[in-house]
Parts: sequence; structure tokens; C-alpha cells
Amino acid sequence: MKVDKPAFQAVATVENNRFTLRGEQPVVLAIHGGAGVERAGMTPEIEAGARAAMELALRRGYEQLKQGHQAVDAVTAAITVLEDDPLFNAGRGAVFAHDGHNELDASLMEGATLAAGAVAGVHTVKNPILLARAVMEHSPHVMLAGDGAEQFAKEQGVSLVDPSYFRTERRWQELQHALQEENQQASVPDRAIKHFGTVGAVARDDEGRLAAGTSTGGMTDKHYGRVGDSPVIGAGTYADVDCAVSGTGWGEYYLRVSAAREICLRMGRLGESAATAGKAVIEDEIPGMGGDGGAIVLGSDGEVAFPFNTEGMYRGWIGADGVPHVAIYPNDALPLPVVDR
Amino acid sequence: MKVDKPAFQAVATVENNRFTLRGEQPVVLAIHGGAGVERAGMTPEIEAGARAAMELALRRGYEQLKQGHQAVDAVTAAITVLEDDPLFNAGRGAVFAHDGHNELDASLMEGATLAAGAVAGVHTVKNPILLARAVMEHSPHVMLAGDGAEQFAKEQGVSLVDPSYFRTERRWQELQHALQEENQQASVPDRAIKHFGTVGAVARDDEGRLAAGTSTGGMTDKHYGRVGDSPVIGAGTYADVDCAVSGTGWGEYYLRVSAAREICLRMGRLGESAATAGKAVIEDEIPGMGGDGGAIVLGSDGEVAFPFNTEGMYRGWIGADGVPHVAIYPNDALPLPVVDR
Repeated sequence: MKVDKPAFQAVATVENNRFTLRGEQPVVLAIHGGAGVERAGMTPEIEAGARAAMELALRRGYEQLKQGHQAVDAVTAAITVLEDDPLFNAGRGAVFAHDGHNELDASLMEGATLAAGAVAGVHTVKNPILLARAVMEHSPHVMLAGDGAEQFAKEQGVSLVDPSYFRTERRWQELQHALQEENQQASVPDRAIKHFGTVGAVARDDEGRLAAGTSTGGMTDKHYGRVGDSPVIGAGTYADVDCAVSGTGWGEYYLRVSAAREICLRMGRLGESAATAGKAVIEDEIPGMGGDGGAIVLGSDGEVAFPFNTEGMYRGWIGADGVPHVAIYPNDALPLPVVDR
Repeated sequence: MKVDKPAFQAVATVENNRFTLRGEQPVVLAIHGGAGVERAGMTPEIEAGARAAMELALRRGYEQLKQGHQAVDAVTAAITVLEDDPLFNAGRGAVFAHDGHNELDASLMEGATLAAGAVAGVHTVKNPILLARAVMEHSPHVMLAGDGAEQFAKEQGVSLVDPSYFRTERRWQELQHALQEENQQASVPDRAIKHFGTVGAVARDDEGRLAAGTSTGGMTDKHYGRVGDSPVIGAGTYADVDCAVSGTGWGEYYLRVSAAREICLRMGRLGESAATAGKAVIEDEIPGMGGDGGAIVLGSDGEVAFPFNTEGMYRGWIGADGVPHVAIYPNDALPLPVVDR
């Protein structure tokens, strides 16, 4: 969506190696591809593929920001790239539920307006983040689930695919493995619960507006129409004027503390920085309860934080200079944006 | 569920007209039956019936507390009474969705442990609050939706009924009226969205533990598998060590601010009272965005607040003396519990 703005503002200048519009704020976009990275399962091919996909997602989102579009456009563009890549557990490449189907969830929120859209349990929508956006923009509701969400997708002309589109051999084998473990152990093993690889993005546009979005295929071998944190506004996704957050982790814990909302309230009401608020919730509170995962946190001042407490989190950001930065493991070098305080 | 406690604590005494256990805190239970009360639709029969049902719900919940059971038992007992009464939009008497079916949602949370359970879109579960409790106690998940939630109900032996059980003539006529309006106006009228009558309860037991729960039939003529705030932990229901909240209102607004979680964070982190935090979110923030509704808020100090910004809210409370107090309209006399500060 193009932003209407006076023509005199649309003159770009390059100052201090940053893309800005006159009198406006430097743009920034951050993404994650899940905090479920395990060194044991990593190969050079997967690592290179994930890095390339993250760089592409960052560039696609940056294009939106550079053209003067809104933060929500950048978030949507970046997440669409990650959904389309089978390496991530969202869109194509989603993990399989217990019954052998893929069930996809996504949510999107615009900080300036608090407009939000979310969908849970869809199985023919190519890019669930685009359906979440349609809910936000074209329905009076915030959250739609199951068959009703599918029906709304049809009416909105959102791109549909045969459910087999989502199937990848790697995820199918993961389900078979989980089912086998389940049979042997008579109960669902913890490990199956931890197979998370949600994707998400947060952005600030050149008018300082924030947005956040999250998309996931849920967890391998999930039962009972389980709804995790990703499609829940306040748990997996939140944006307001102070902050934008997308989470990735053991969803039940994110739900029980309204993780994304807590991070934003800490920043807005207690004046905590993105790093401080992100650490408090993701590295202290959630692991203190027995949960794990990560998040990306963006403040209105442009500060970006990538808290996580797992072996690794696919993550990256791109700023006003258009150079993408990506990382996977805790000690990977990842320069951070200059904050405008 | 009976609480294990040392025998010497189980001696009740009556001091200052309050039921307490030695060295323990006075118990309190508050309920609501929805903030969608409209004077225009009220009859003496409905008013008398609602008052009687609320008093019964308060007494049933109080029985649990008096017997030394937990806050979550009192919340569950009170909500079950309101679900069973066809006057309220929860359980029997739920409003009809667009397709002529009833879709029920509920959630429950225990403050001391942050344990939580929620169900969305069930249609054969007699008391959705009991299924939310089963999710909390017997599944690794927080939220289940649709067919999966029904399947879990069967496995747990939760009481099931034929969907016709939920049907009441009054709600059916409301749907017919909404459908007629919709045909005449080509779009869903705002008024249909506002038919909310969710029920909820919050309690503090004699060990100072808090709990909150909410149950609803959603909104008349709803489309698309819409999920409101009632089954969303953090939006319609929240409890922690500082506070317990159950909301009733235009769910989309409660979702967009994580209303229940925001009230609890204000109380826990900013030190606001139940009255101050409840007013800020329910009487200022939500109407400022264009939404409406109400909530019940209970602090760890026993303070109870009943903020709402509509024509009326079915509401009441019962304290250590076992005398129920109920009210409907803003100016109805409603004494408040003595706070132990």
C-alpha cells in the first residue's frame, strides 16, 4: 500500500550512509526465522540456504521502506519470502500436525493504529500473513479460525493452493519420527513440542510507524487443534507506538505471560529499552517458568534486540543503508543499528 | 479439588463478621454476567431472573471457598451456574452464529502458577469452562480450537450435549432479527456486533491465591469462525499473583490492547489499585479507541472493581461473611469489600 504524502517530502537524501527522507526517521527492518535451531541438525546446505533466504527477505522488505511504503508493507513482504522458503516452519515447509495435515497460523499488527489481524488453523492459504493482513484491513474482526478463516480467504481473493503445496519431505520425516517416538513412549515426548521454527518481522518506516508480524506451521505432531502464541495478538505478536515484537518459542509460555504485550508495556510504561525489556521476558521470565524461545524487539527509537535462550535463532536486520546483516548462533557477529536517541 | 493443608490450619473462626482461617486471608469472589445490558430490552422478569442467578452463582462459588477449596474451584463453580442459566450468553442461552449454530468459548487461569486453559468454537460441550479447566490441568497446551477441542472433551469425559441443548427461543429470534437487518442493509450492522453478554468470575481463596475465568457464546450473527477476547489469555481473562481479571465487551478492542494483561501489569508493575487500573483500560483506553464493555478486577489485597462504560453490567460479589451483593445499572447500590491494606 502506497502512503499518501506531500510531494515535497518524497525527496530522498543520503546522509551519514543512511537512507532518509527529509526530516524523517531512518528505516529499519528486523526478522527471525525461528529460535528452534539445533546444531545437531544443521548442515552447511541448510545454513547457507537460511542465510540467503533471510538476506532476500530483508532486501524485499527494505524495498518497500525505500519506496516510502509503510512498516506493515515491509513486514508483510519479508514474511512472505520466509513463508515461501521450505527451510522455515511457515507457509511452504510447515511442520505436520498429528493427523498428517499442515495447519498454519499468522498475525499482523500496526503500531500507530493498533489495527490487527490474525488467522489460526488454515490449510489452503499460500501465505497466511497475507490473510492476516486481509483480516486486519477488510474485516471488523481481529482473529478468525479454521473453516471460517478459509471462507474469508476465498471471499477476499487471497491466493489458495492445494494442501499438498505445503508438504516437504523433511517435515514429513520429522512427523514420522515423532509418531514413532510417541508409540514407543506412550506419551508425547517433550522434544516434539520444541520443534518450533516460526518466522517473523518488525519494522519502522520513514514516518516512524512500527509494525510486527509472525507466521508459523505450529509444532510437529500437534494434537487437538492446539493454538499457539503466533496467531494471538499480545502473545506472539504486538506493536504499538513504543515497540514492535515478534516471538518464536514454546508457545504455551508466551501465551501465559502475553509475552509480546509485556515487552511493549515494559518499554512504554516503564521506559525500558528494547534490550532490557526483551531480556527480562525472553531470557529471564520465560525460562524461569520452564519455557524457551526468542523474539525480535524494535523500539520507536530504532533500537533492535534479538533476545533468545536456545542454541540458535535465525535472525537479521537491515537499516537505512540497505545492507542486510544475518546471524544464527549466539556468538555470531551481528552489528546493531545506530539508535537515534 | 481439595487443597492439602496442615490440619491445624483447618479450624475456621469468625472474626469481625468475616469467615477466615487462622492467619489466612478473607475470601472473596466477584462475577459478571455481561456488560451488554440495555434498558430498552429489560423486563422485570429478566431482571429478577438475572439477580437470582447471580446470587446463586455467588453462593455456589462461596461454598467452594468456605470449604477451603482453591480460587479456581470457586471461579469454575460460579461460572457453571451462569452457563447453565439461559439468561446469559454462555453455555445454555448462547447467541447464534450466522450459520444458525452456537459456538462457545471459555478460558480459565490460576494466578499463583500462571496455569491456563482455553477453548474456542466448541458446540457440544455443556460447560465450556469445565473443558477449559481440563485443558489447563490435563493437556500440555493452553488453547484448543474447534474439532480438536471437541475431541479432547470426549477423551476427558467432559459432559457433552446435543447442540440443540444450547438453543433458546430468545436467542434464535435475535439471530433472525440480525439476519433481517443484514439483508436490508447489505452490511453487518454495528448493533449485531454489540450483543455481548459474556459471563466471568474472579476469586481469592483463603491462602491468597487468585483465579479468573470467562465463558461466552460470542456475538449474534458472527461470521467466519471469529475468535473474540473471551478464550484469549491476556485479552478476556488473566490472573497472576497481583490481580485477576475477566472482561466482557467488544472483543476486538480487548484483543488489540490485551486488556486483562494490561490491567494486571498496571497493578503489578506500576502499583495501581484495581479501581485505577480497571478504569484506565476499560473506561478510558478502550472507549477512546471506539470500543465498549466492562470487566471485573480483583487485587491481591482483596480490592474488587467493576469498571464498565455501557448502560449496565450484571455484576456482584460475595465476601467472607457469605452475603451476596448484586447490581445491574451504574447507579445501583453496591457496597464493596473491605480491603486488607
